[in-house]
Amino acid sequence: MLTLHDNLGSGNAYKVRLLLAQLGRPFRRIEYDVTSGETRTPEYLRLNPNGRVPALEFPDGRVLAESNAILFYLAEGTDYLPGDAFARARALQWMFFEQYSHEPYIAVARYWLHFLDRRDGLEEKWQKGHQALAVMEEHLAEHDFFAGTGYSIADIALYAYSHVADEAEMDLAPYPALRRWLDRVADQPGHVLISQAEFD
Amino acid sequence: MLTLHDNLGSGNAYKVRLLLAQLGRPFRRIEYDVTSGETRTPEYLRLNPNGRVPALEFPDGRVLAESNAILFYLAEGTDYLPGDAFARARALQWMFFEQYSHEPYIAVARYWLHFLDRRDGLEEKWQKGHQALAVMEEHLAEHDFFAGTGYSIADIALYAYSHVADEAEMDLAPYPALRRWLDRVADQPGHVLISQAEFD
Repeated sequence: MLTLHDNLGSGNAYKVRLLLAQLGRPFRRIEYDVTSGETRTPEYLRLNPNGRVPALEFPDGRVLAESNAILFYLAEGTDYLPGDAFARARALQWMFFEQYSHEPYIAVARYWLHFLDRRDGLEEKWQKGHQALAVMEEHLAEHDFFAGTGYSIADIALYAYSHVADEAEMDLAPYPALRRWLDRVADQPGHVLISQAEFD
Repeated sequence: MLTLHDNLGSGNAYKVRLLLAQLGRPFRRIEYDVTSGETRTPEYLRLNPNGRVPALEFPDGRVLAESNAILFYLAEGTDYLPGDAFARARALQWMFFEQYSHEPYIAVARYWLHFLDRRDGLEEKWQKGHQALAVMEEHLAEHDFFAGTGYSIADIALYAYSHVADEAEMDLAPYPALRRWLDRVADQPGHVLISQAEFD
């Protein structure tokens, strides 16, 4: 059985829960309180030296970290990752975009507001977060999904924090194509909510 | 012929030049001055809506962005990317680590100091950059390379800014295993320098 080192508030961890649910793969969850340093203990750092969730532990003891690397591994050979090499690279392009140009702004603004009640420094987060949303909007004005022709792990990666942008006090009204894409992602078979802790 | 939209000062662009050189794939370079906004013109944004270098343009007009996605695409089916699915995911784990936990600190500190002569805010960059180097050191104390058993695109991704950490005024003396790994990477067949603009 897979073990997901997890946090129900984390969009990065949600990516993995969502794909595991859609793949129908059973897993057990261990919940960590990231605000109190539970992912920085010596025991946890032996699992993931970078001290973050999610980390996925396999029955043989191997541990894979970084949400988007976990998505890629779980999706290989399934419909959630295109088979064509260029489409796979396009999925990765959007997943690196997510971690470099989207998550550090939208996820961090949400973390500050939703979990820490911090407002200092938000303006820069919002400004760069809206730049990322505008890049997504431009793509989604002409495409239904981010890589290849259908729903893939690139959509899961970008959905995780985009769909809770309101918790970062970011308004999605200027992004109609993005809002339609959020609905398309939520309509995919097997979709689960970010707050969902129990899986059949 | 491939066209690399490039900047000789960028470690992200260097990753692609280094792999193309090692693969022996001919390419032409177009150099952009990133400090003066040459990657934010309407013409450039049509190539890469996220307004960054590198971007790799194929003869059929398709453009791939995000340095690590480009590395993955070019390396598929070669010795620079492991064939085993788990080792490939491990390479991606380190490449996402590089873009999220390493580049935003070490590359940005280097950019501020080396290109903008800015010192404000460096302390946080240095502190988090050293955290990333410590994670690398722990891995390299027990492994020669980052993924699988040999040199791969994970090493290229992490080498790009680690080997110029001195330009970020970051001292690598506390990281002996990392310094030996820098030497191993520089000794790989076909290695080129970050400043190299001409390729055979």
